[in-house]
Amino acid sequence: MSISTPPKEDTGTTPAISGRAQSVPSSPIRKLADLAISAKERGVKVYHLNIGQPDVATPPEFFQGIREFSEKVVEYGHSKGLKVLLEAWARYYAQKGLDVEPNQIQVTTGGSEAVAFSFMLTCDTGDNVVVSEPFYTNYGSIATALDIKLKPVQANPDLGYCLPAREEIENAIDDRTRALMICSPNNPTGTVLRRDEVATVVQIADERKLFVISDEVYREFCYEGDHTSIWQFAQIGDRAILLDSISKRFSACGARIGALVCRNTQVMDAALRLGQARLSTPTVEQVAAARLMDLGEDYYAQLADEYKSRRDLMFERLEQMPGVFCRKPSGAFYMMATLPVDDSDRFCRWMLTDFSHEGQTVMMAPGDGFYSTPGSGRQEARLAYVLKTDELSKAMDTLAVGLEAYPGRQDTGKP
Amino acid sequence: MSISTPPKEDTGTTPAISGRAQSVPSSPIRKLADLAISAKERGVKVYHLNIGQPDVATPPEFFQGIREFSEKVVEYGHSKGLKVLLEAWARYYAQKGLDVEPNQIQVTTGGSEAVAFSFMLTCDTGDNVVVSEPFYTNYGSIATALDIKLKPVQANPDLGYCLPAREEIENAIDDRTRALMICSPNNPTGTVLRRDEVATVVQIADERKLFVISDEVYREFCYEGDHTSIWQFAQIGDRAILLDSISKRFSACGARIGALVCRNTQVMDAALRLGQARLSTPTVEQVAAARLMDLGEDYYAQLADEYKSRRDLMFERLEQMPGVFCRKPSGAFYMMATLPVDDSDRFCRWMLTDFSHEGQTVMMAPGDGFYSTPGSGRQEARLAYVLKTDELSKAMDTLAVGLEAYPGRQDTGKP
Repeated sequence: MSISTPPKEDTGTTPAISGRAQSVPSSPIRKLADLAISAKERGVKVYHLNIGQPDVATPPEFFQGIREFSEKVVEYGHSKGLKVLLEAWARYYAQKGLDVEPNQIQVTTGGSEAVAFSFMLTCDTGDNVVVSEPFYTNYGSIATALDIKLKPVQANPDLGYCLPAREEIENAIDDRTRALMICSPNNPTGTVLRRDEVATVVQIADERKLFVISDEVYREFCYEGDHTSIWQFAQIGDRAILLDSISKRFSACGARIGALVCRNTQVMDAALRLGQARLSTPTVEQVAAARLMDLGEDYYAQLADEYKSRRDLMFERLEQMPGVFCRKPSGAFYMMATLPVDDSDRFCRWMLTDFSHEGQTVMMAPGDGFYSTPGSGRQEARLAYVLKTDELSKAMDTLAVGLEAYPGRQDTGKP
Repeated sequence: MSISTPPKEDTGTTPAISGRAQSVPSSPIRKLADLAISAKERGVKVYHLNIGQPDVATPPEFFQGIREFSEKVVEYGHSKGLKVLLEAWARYYAQKGLDVEPNQIQVTTGGSEAVAFSFMLTCDTGDNVVVSEPFYTNYGSIATALDIKLKPVQANPDLGYCLPAREEIENAIDDRTRALMICSPNNPTGTVLRRDEVATVVQIADERKLFVISDEVYREFCYEGDHTSIWQFAQIGDRAILLDSISKRFSACGARIGALVCRNTQVMDAALRLGQARLSTPTVEQVAAARLMDLGEDYYAQLADEYKSRRDLMFERLEQMPGVFCRKPSGAFYMMATLPVDDSDRFCRWMLTDFSHEGQTVMMAPGDGFYSTPGSGRQEARLAYVLKTDELSKAMDTLAVGLEAYPGRQDTGKP
């Protein structure tokens, strides 16, 4: 993050915590949680568009896996991941046309740990990763905790947050840059990178000898056209680090099962040593997760259909709201909308503390939390379409009324 | 770790991984795993004294908790931990005479994450933590991954690895020292700190304005006298950071449920932000873990009885082996023995590759992996007594024969 580390200050009797711990930001997705609780205590129904927590049921195979766990002792698993899960995950990739060997997979505690591992594997203190902004907040939080810098390049809302031009990415690279990071389908924007965009990133990485860290946890959530994986680019070879997770596609966020995938044996060896340093990921959940990997294309198609109709509804309704600007995103289950408000953090708080319409309100994630450049994202908010369409429709009604009623309304300067 | 970071080297087509990733050591506990697998493939039975993986059954309450999990969606939990677990954990502490509020607990992904959080909360890059050596290897691995230094002070094997004298600890503290770390009962030595030893650490921390990080995951494994917790020292107040885990006491290592406990609101606030950066710990396992917290003193007493008889057996047998030196430890389920060998790493490998007795051999953790001071621990090995006494007895028979047969036998210079 670009926020500089505040000086340590000892308050007399108590030693100060570290500068990095002071600098790790609150999650924009979770920081308003207490306001939502208070609203609910006042009897207000809160539609949660703030968090990427799907409401779709976790497939029954997962629960069967859990119930049938028959070991007498819940033992540590292998630090790399249980064999049954590594093999199942490789089968899943094969299904997607990606040729991944089990030994090219390191199981992680959620996608979160895969992000942390990818940063530790590529960067020493003070090194940096170039990433397009807005980006998933926790990239910034994890980088701050590890004393690694993220160097943002600006994705333009007017162009649907597609990747900036090649020169802009190249200009951001300096002698401390170790990796380029992409996330497609994107959190928080929902943007799906075109094949030529990924190819450009691959070319730059190839020329500048950088790793490419590719977060593909939303792979299944593509509503127009196919997903482009970093794994499809043969020439990137040893430089590609793919991050993955079962959280979203199997609606199993609380299982905390993710993966880091790489062809580079030096990376995989070091990833295993990082894995040994934290022993293993949850055993029961790994066994259960392995059961999900063979679900097949029908499952994913049905999932994408459901979210596509939600996206269409949310986009259509946002378009109808005067002053709201948004390009239709092609993937994930988020939209980054530009709102006609003075400050989206203030607006999101106000929606929870001062507003209700027919006993209901909406919780969103303020946009500035997805930027590291100070002052950016102040009129944006991330909306997750993780509710069924009838609920989502009511949430949109409520948001429309809220925007009209908000005292800090302010033009966006957009068409 | 004291190992200096090797320079990065780019191999032409492949970018080099980070210096820290190169420096994270292999686990001494797990690095010989492939040799054990090969031995088993040759038909040799391997007694695993290398790893602290208890063979005691996980209590049925845990499995009931898992089987009765009835949510339709495996959702993210609160980043601090599920309320049901926070409250249950506070009840557990009350049972132990420790007055801990639920809001003073941050649930972590195993004790491992609690260690990582405690380092990140107290140290910036290049800061250090003073710890007595030998220490649990993963303290060193995690510190290396985070670019934090451990400054070792020497615990003397001849004195049963008790804490070094006050002056030695004080001399190790420099202007980058942020915390003193203790682990009692100790991994890898089994040593239980006396109350006056903990009091000394508290006094030093008080005078020098340092945090005390106290790893108490083996609290229940005390065979002579009571356990002294850092929490019992009122004057340490905001400076005490207690690390905990359900892994050992409930034989639930694979559940990955731990905790960081602190009275300091600044620490707890930052711990929550670190928690948000990785979203949550496993939901199902948290629900199940909460069921274990009310098991009561009978459960712990029975557990300690079982391990005490194992300790007695292992110690008695080690004492009878010519040339082996060991003081009787009072806790945990480890012993650090000094062996009459030229190099314990070589000896431990040889036991797996070149030796068997009646089709059996023993796997141990070489001692040097628990030291950061180069050359230390070369005649020591950590032995975990995590097998039933009849198995343990056979393992000791096998070790005795192995020591006699080993070609690199060398005197220890000890009585």
